[in-house]
Amino acid sequence: MPNKKLPHSALNEKPGISSPEAISAAAVEHIQQFRKIQPSSNELFSGILAGNITALSRAITLVESTNTNHLAKANEVINACLPHANKSVRIGITGVPGVGKSTFIEAFGLHLTSLGKKVAVLAVDPSSTISHGSILGDKTRMEELVKDKNAYIRPSASGETLGGVARKTRETITLCEACGFDTILIETVGVGQSETAVHSMVDFFLLLKITGAGDDLQGIKRGIMEMADAIVINKADGDNIRKAQLAKLEFKRALHLFPAKKSGWIPTTSTCSSISHEGIAEVWETIHKFLELTKVNNYFFEKRKEQNQYWMLETINEQLKTNFYNNPEIQVSMNATKKAVQNDEISPFAAAQKLLETYFKK
Amino acid sequence: MPNKKLPHSALNEKPGISSPEAISAAAVEHIQQFRKIQPSSNELFSGILAGNITALSRAITLVESTNTNHLAKANEVINACLPHANKSVRIGITGVPGVGKSTFIEAFGLHLTSLGKKVAVLAVDPSSTISHGSILGDKTRMEELVKDKNAYIRPSASGETLGGVARKTRETITLCEACGFDTILIETVGVGQSETAVHSMVDFFLLLKITGAGDDLQGIKRGIMEMADAIVINKADGDNIRKAQLAKLEFKRALHLFPAKKSGWIPTTSTCSSISHEGIAEVWETIHKFLELTKVNNYFFEKRKEQNQYWMLETINEQLKTNFYNNPEIQVSMNATKKAVQNDEISPFAAAQKLLETYFKK
Repeated sequence: MPNKKLPHSALNEKPGISSPEAISAAAVEHIQQFRKIQPSSNELFSGILAGNITALSRAITLVESTNTNHLAKANEVINACLPHANKSVRIGITGVPGVGKSTFIEAFGLHLTSLGKKVAVLAVDPSSTISHGSILGDKTRMEELVKDKNAYIRPSASGETLGGVARKTRETITLCEACGFDTILIETVGVGQSETAVHSMVDFFLLLKITGAGDDLQGIKRGIMEMADAIVINKADGDNIRKAQLAKLEFKRALHLFPAKKSGWIPTTSTCSSISHEGIAEVWETIHKFLELTKVNNYFFEKRKEQNQYWMLETINEQLKTNFYNNPEIQVSMNATKKAVQNDEISPFAAAQKLLETYFKK
Repeated sequence: MPNKKLPHSALNEKPGISSPEAISAAAVEHIQQFRKIQPSSNELFSGILAGNITALSRAITLVESTNTNHLAKANEVINACLPHANKSVRIGITGVPGVGKSTFIEAFGLHLTSLGKKVAVLAVDPSSTISHGSILGDKTRMEELVKDKNAYIRPSASGETLGGVARKTRETITLCEACGFDTILIETVGVGQSETAVHSMVDFFLLLKITGAGDDLQGIKRGIMEMADAIVINKADGDNIRKAQLAKLEFKRALHLFPAKKSGWIPTTSTCSSISHEGIAEVWETIHKFLELTKVNNYFFEKRKEQNQYWMLETINEQLKTNFYNNPEIQVSMNATKKAVQNDEISPFAAAQKLLETYFKK
């Protein structure tokens, strides 16, 4: 750092003897140059198919981009990947914050890779848009799994809407599958609407619970229990084992209240410990049984077809709304119209009609 | 009936002696002439404001029409009525078929008119589109109420979508209120999505139940119980009284599982008999208490504002979809695209993108 006014200190460099740069300028330029090279969609596709993680990560970045050129390119890569995707099991994992999702995924993921599986861990976390810290941002809680060459961990995409975040994760699944990952874990927090979105992209839905901490039957959102294929009570270790067993029975009883599932599957309840690894292997055995049943009765395949259609229609409906509400003329008049409607100056229907006429006339 | 080949029977008319017409041709012409006169929106509005039931019914027919000219006229009438509406209590009544909704409404409605209230009974029944027999079509089950000059019963509108049916009922509420009806009962079946729509247009939501007949806790849709401000167990008469009392306790316990309501109201459980009229007066007392609470804590007014906004946005979103899916070009390509998506020939997102481009380019 020459030519700078130096403070009086014994630690100062003598003029003419400057310390080397902390970061090599040559290396920076090299990396920048490398980043500027935008591989073609074909290159990305071949990379993904060859199991190249860099190509996979770059394609996911394209998917997550809001740039419309990137969108077109992302669609090319995804469509190329499609015939090579789908050979996987997609597992949704939900639970309120504090239930130990990350430590469970660490233990469960390592068990899966020990069985020779290739595991991708994704997330749907709409709150990441606000906090910019996604639920999977903190990879330190998965320190073993992150080092496992048969595991790929990708934090949640961010976006303005849950629909957008969920869509990006759904597209990322296809890329991971084409890259050879045969077990996809999708994490989401058990609050809000995100678990519905995740439920619409997975084969098996696992609800993670703990005893106490307000996370008993009472605090649970009814809709989530209705979706669960398995309820696993985590942190069943030490003094907690007996309480976890009791909670298991309580959930078993509660599950009886729900109507039978179309899959023919009867939801299971179990306990596990992400620390002692007790019960972790059993979770995979349960999922394996589920797959056996639903592949024989065809539910597995029918559901995937339905999900594909669902995502097409969802994307359309979302885009129609985005187009309308982002229309400059609509944005100008929307607030005043909302107020008028709230105060009964105009009927909600006449107001809607007026806005729609403005929109469609252009 | 002259000049017709007559069979050989002693009951035949002799030629030249014809019986009079069963329906007076003059009367028919008079009625047809009367029906052709389309009162102006102004005339309808003044009629409604004067409490004229014919004007009200005609305005509702306009609201229910699919003719776009009628739509414009209906909007004029509704907007004119708006400043005179809203002074009412809107009560949603739901329950599965067989729970005795009609007999309950007959008993409850008569109790309300005996208190000097003017009661309008409406319905949201999307199934009426298919069966052309609405849940309120059978007025014979309300034979006393239908004769009561302070009651107005209107069967469910029909339409292609639940959204359409619900919208029409929501608009009809405004007309009824301007016509002087101060208590609006809106009936719906407790299956499908219709109760969500009704919940979005009422102040108080009543869930009607019976014991046995599979309509116990087990068969209930969780979402509906979450919405209920009161659960009333009907048919608590004869041998059924004790069972109804037990069911009441069970529901009371089950209601405890739900989080507290924003209204500050604690949902009640009670029993009643539409035959002995036991417990019917208490239902109104409950609603009265609810109104006292929520008008003091302002929830009543805030909720109505929110509902108005909800209906505006719902109408817009519904219309955007209708416009898209009814677009001729989209209709041509939709089925093939759906198939391609189901069979993984194209990603759901690329497919959506393609259809949206087709739609927006025109």
